[in-house]
Amino acid sequence: MFTEKQNRMQTWAAIFLIIAIAIGVAMIPQLNKYGTEVAMVAAENEFMYEKAIHILVMLLMGFGFLMVFVKKYGYTSITATFLVVALSLPLYMLIRPYLWGTSADIAITNISMLLFAEFAAASLLIAIGGPLGRINTSQYLLIGLLFTPVYAVNEWILFSGSVIPAGAFLDTAGSVMIHAFGAYFAFGMIIMLTTKKERTTSVETSKTSNEFAMLGSAALWIFWPSFCAALVPVNQIPLVAINTILALCGSTLSTYVFSVLIRGKIEIADIANASLAGGVAIGATVANVTPGWSMLIGLVAGMISVVGYTIIQPRLQKATGGVDTCGVHNLHGMTGVLGGLIAVGLVVSPLWQMAGVIITVIFAVVMGILVGFVTSRLGRKETPYDDKEEFCVSE
Amino acid sequence: MFTEKQNRMQTWAAIFLIIAIAIGVAMIPQLNKYGTEVAMVAAENEFMYEKAIHILVMLLMGFGFLMVFVKKYGYTSITATFLVVALSLPLYMLIRPYLWGTSADIAITNISMLLFAEFAAASLLIAIGGPLGRINTSQYLLIGLLFTPVYAVNEWILFSGSVIPAGAFLDTAGSVMIHAFGAYFAFGMIIMLTTKKERTTSVETSKTSNEFAMLGSAALWIFWPSFCAALVPVNQIPLVAINTILALCGSTLSTYVFSVLIRGKIEIADIANASLAGGVAIGATVANVTPGWSMLIGLVAGMISVVGYTIIQPRLQKATGGVDTCGVHNLHGMTGVLGGLIAVGLVVSPLWQMAGVIITVIFAVVMGILVGFVTSRLGRKETPYDDKEEFCVSE
Amino acid sequence: MFTEKQNRMQTWAAIFLIIAIAIGVAMIPQLNKYGTEVAMVAAENEFMYEKAIHILVMLLMGFGFLMVFVKKYGYTSITATFLVVALSLPLYMLIRPYLWGTSADIAITNISMLLFAEFAAASLLIAIGGPLGRINTSQYLLIGLLFTPVYAVNEWILFSGSVIPAGAFLDTAGSVMIHAFGAYFAFGMIIMLTTKKERTTSVETSKTSNEFAMLGSAALWIFWPSFCAALVPVNQIPLVAINTILALCGSTLSTYVFSVLIRGKIEIADIANASLAGGVAIGATVANVTPGWSMLIGLVAGMISVVGYTIIQPRLQKATGGVDTCGVHNLHGMTGVLGGLIAVGLVVSPLWQMAGVIITVIFAVVMGILVGFVTSRLGRKETPYDDKEEFCVSE
Repeated sequence: MFTEKQNRMQTWAAIFLIIAIAIGVAMIPQLNKYGTEVAMVAAENEFMYEKAIHILVMLLMGFGFLMVFVKKYGYTSITATFLVVALSLPLYMLIRPYLWGTSADIAITNISMLLFAEFAAASLLIAIGGPLGRINTSQYLLIGLLFTPVYAVNEWILFSGSVIPAGAFLDTAGSVMIHAFGAYFAFGMIIMLTTKKERTTSVETSKTSNEFAMLGSAALWIFWPSFCAALVPVNQIPLVAINTILALCGSTLSTYVFSVLIRGKIEIADIANASLAGGVAIGATVANVTPGWSMLIGLVAGMISVVGYTIIQPRLQKATGGVDTCGVHNLHGMTGVLGGLIAVGLVVSPLWQMAGVIITVIFAVVMGILVGFVTSRLGRKETPYDDKEEFCVSE
Repeated sequence: MFTEKQNRMQTWAAIFLIIAIAIGVAMIPQLNKYGTEVAMVAAENEFMYEKAIHILVMLLMGFGFLMVFVKKYGYTSITATFLVVALSLPLYMLIRPYLWGTSADIAITNISMLLFAEFAAASLLIAIGGPLGRINTSQYLLIGLLFTPVYAVNEWILFSGSVIPAGAFLDTAGSVMIHAFGAYFAFGMIIMLTTKKERTTSVETSKTSNEFAMLGSAALWIFWPSFCAALVPVNQIPLVAINTILALCGSTLSTYVFSVLIRGKIEIADIANASLAGGVAIGATVANVTPGWSMLIGLVAGMISVVGYTIIQPRLQKATGGVDTCGVHNLHGMTGVLGGLIAVGLVVSPLWQMAGVIITVIFAVVMGILVGFVTSRLGRKETPYDDKEEFCVSE
Repeated sequence: MFTEKQNRMQTWAAIFLIIAIAIGVAMIPQLNKYGTEVAMVAAENEFMYEKAIHILVMLLMGFGFLMVFVKKYGYTSITATFLVVALSLPLYMLIRPYLWGTSADIAITNISMLLFAEFAAASLLIAIGGPLGRINTSQYLLIGLLFTPVYAVNEWILFSGSVIPAGAFLDTAGSVMIHAFGAYFAFGMIIMLTTKKERTTSVETSKTSNEFAMLGSAALWIFWPSFCAALVPVNQIPLVAINTILALCGSTLSTYVFSVLIRGKIEIADIANASLAGGVAIGATVANVTPGWSMLIGLVAGMISVVGYTIIQPRLQKATGGVDTCGVHNLHGMTGVLGGLIAVGLVVSPLWQMAGVIITVIFAVVMGILVGFVTSRLGRKETPYDDKEEFCVSE
């Protein structure tokens, strides 16, 4: 009744069902362990709650629809988004308490724990943007399964105080921890997950698929201030929000300018992606700079991102052989590192700041190569970019 | 100048204009009656305000675009959504104060009143998902007009304390009151509103219409925690939010798994709908279980919902003759009842809990049949699923 | 390598880059000047923060996608939205402190400043809806550059107390200041920006483009309560929110009714636009009327707006020669003035209220004509409504 390929898909689906049940069961005792010992005051939790919902918009509607730009791959893009979010949120919440953190942060009765999990999911969504369209749904889930603990370890390196001294690494909204890590993880994966044929196959888009991508982009733009302000003290939220918005204004304007200057026409994919570069780059120092500087950082970030899409990406692809479907290296990689390096000028110990950036990039690339290799063992799609592979598609 | 059919449409439009004016006029004295006597503290209102806006997203963008999946019926789906929301919110706010409730809950100066009205609108949107595509806009409005008071009466049965003792029925976020009621109301209506021809006409979808449906689904997923946490005490919001999210993670994963296991391919309509089943099923007990259990409840709910779409719905349609366009029985009906029954194990008086579920289902079906009959008297569409019937459509 | 037309586009892009850098640099000292002197309490800022994010949804997703209804112009509509928002937010925040206001309102450390800037951006987005599709991206940016200070001056006239006495003009949520100003500015511009050929070219739409417009409309509907409640005292938010929602319910219902009564069929563009008329008209008096009256005001506003689209717009176009692509005069112009005039019956000095409305309309039209003239000097598009002009479009 089912083909061999379908049987394989079903076997993997059953495996992931067992994993999901195991996560649920393993979580049962967790409330007692990390429960009500220290609960944040209601208002604090409530303010973070709003941010947590806003970040959910970024995850499912933002990243999800931004990846719908691949014409014949919309169903898979959005389904993969749903699946990796649904896997990584509980997985992170299960493992994080065993790694580090005070119960004031990671108790399941505080929204902060949810926010940490959402950051992990965001970084994962960035990571799958690299090999997007060239793996199947089981492989997205496998990547999610392997990425999440690795991400948690990198977070532990940067912020637990066990490796880098506590407070020495400045990365308020995750330029490095979330964006650069996800992008360089993708960088590693695609080296292992690109076939020769794919290097010559360009991504097909359509008017409607690009408009959905712009919708995803708008969702990310709009709720980015909540991403940056999620974990800052309440009295810093206004400055952080305004800095974030001005950085995004800056990158939006310079994206347009450099798209026009370099290409002679506007590329809608530049607008959808590079407009957000200001949000990525401002992440590390968003609570430490003033609005004017935020706008200038955004202007630079947008420029770098467009230069990435137009000039750097083709060369990098030739050099490494890896095809970066969404260009996550342009949007999250270089600008994330930029954000981390801007902080070098603002921290007490510039060397630790540099070290944090370098460790993250290397760790991400190495782990990405490893995970990419493991993932490639599950087989490769024959035809890239087509929903027909795994979905019931009528036409 | 106008055809006879258009004249009928205009007559009904004029009738609904008069009804709308009557509602507005009847509300004028209401502020004085249910006004400033007891006002919630500003912060409490403000926290509920955010939830109220989030639920509006679910109503207009969530339910609205989830129903856009019918290919040639997008204009009508979204317009019907706008219309029934615009009718039921003021209608509920007008009649509810005459039924029951303290002024602390139902004063127009407290957001809680708006939340109750939004729940009614949500249940109504579930209900119209059943006959979607087979009635005209006047009939959606007529259903809205008749459904709203019936829903308010069922709410009164469950929670006013006049029938079931106060506090005896556990349904924190409306698994039974909102979801099961709406779905079984639809169940009743479609028995009266399905013609022979429609039983053999399958719903036509398209890539774009399904992607809009996924957008609606994402909107529902994202803001579901606010739906569940809208009326719980502020200190319970974190647990309720995390439980809701984990239930949704569970149902999203099991939807994928069972779609693959049963069909051998992924059906995008499963992902769009059954992924949300965890939110429905967790509703009753969301403030009474722990995160691990929430994930497991979600996993079960997703499975049941996919089984509903693939196996139960075709049989049920053969048995009752009613065509359930959106499959609301699979997403909101069975899983809503499941949610209500899970609570049986957690409440002081399991019999009252059972009674509440049974009363709701029977009352909903009977009233649905009645309203379906009345609605069918306004005539039936000749060709199902086409915007051309009532909209200016160029092509 | 590049055509002459592309060179011109690149020159203008470079000019706007310099302007953006200048804004960023000019803002650097601003934090010190308008900084931490008087900071709002954290909770107050936090409540306004949520509204500020909601209004961002309205700007980028709401107005942006509402303008995607022009079939072959979706890329430009959404890009123009991004660009004018990205330009006007920092520009307004730069110039406003030099005009008027206490540091409690306009300090960069208070969210209120961001809200004022967002209102300016909203009014600007209304304004570009008039000539939409008949100018190029440089011209959208030029309009943004010129509009923002003019808007700030009108705001100063109405509310600084220097012209109209402080408190004498009632316009809580900007029926006049935001909506009527933007619409009559558009009214002025299009007189200067319409060619003969354009008067006979009708706007082409498609099923998908109209569905995106409905998505934009839904985003505006949903978050409109936050637009109206952004700057009211916290204890007034519940009433303001409920009044706004009831006004929108009223206009949604009457839009349907009058679309059917006048056209004999439903026009989806009516639903997308006129449904929002209640939000526009209630703006001025939203904190001063009761829910019943709000619904009635909404019913009237929806009717006026549909009459505008069906009967007034064609005549106005013939009389003035200006083509109003989005029909902003119908949605924001007449209903904004209506809102301002309703307040005449509620204020202490009806004459000042009248004066505020009249001054705003005249000032907007005159400035619109001026800016339209300047904009027309940059040249005119040869073929209206096509993304191909400036974007990389494959098909």
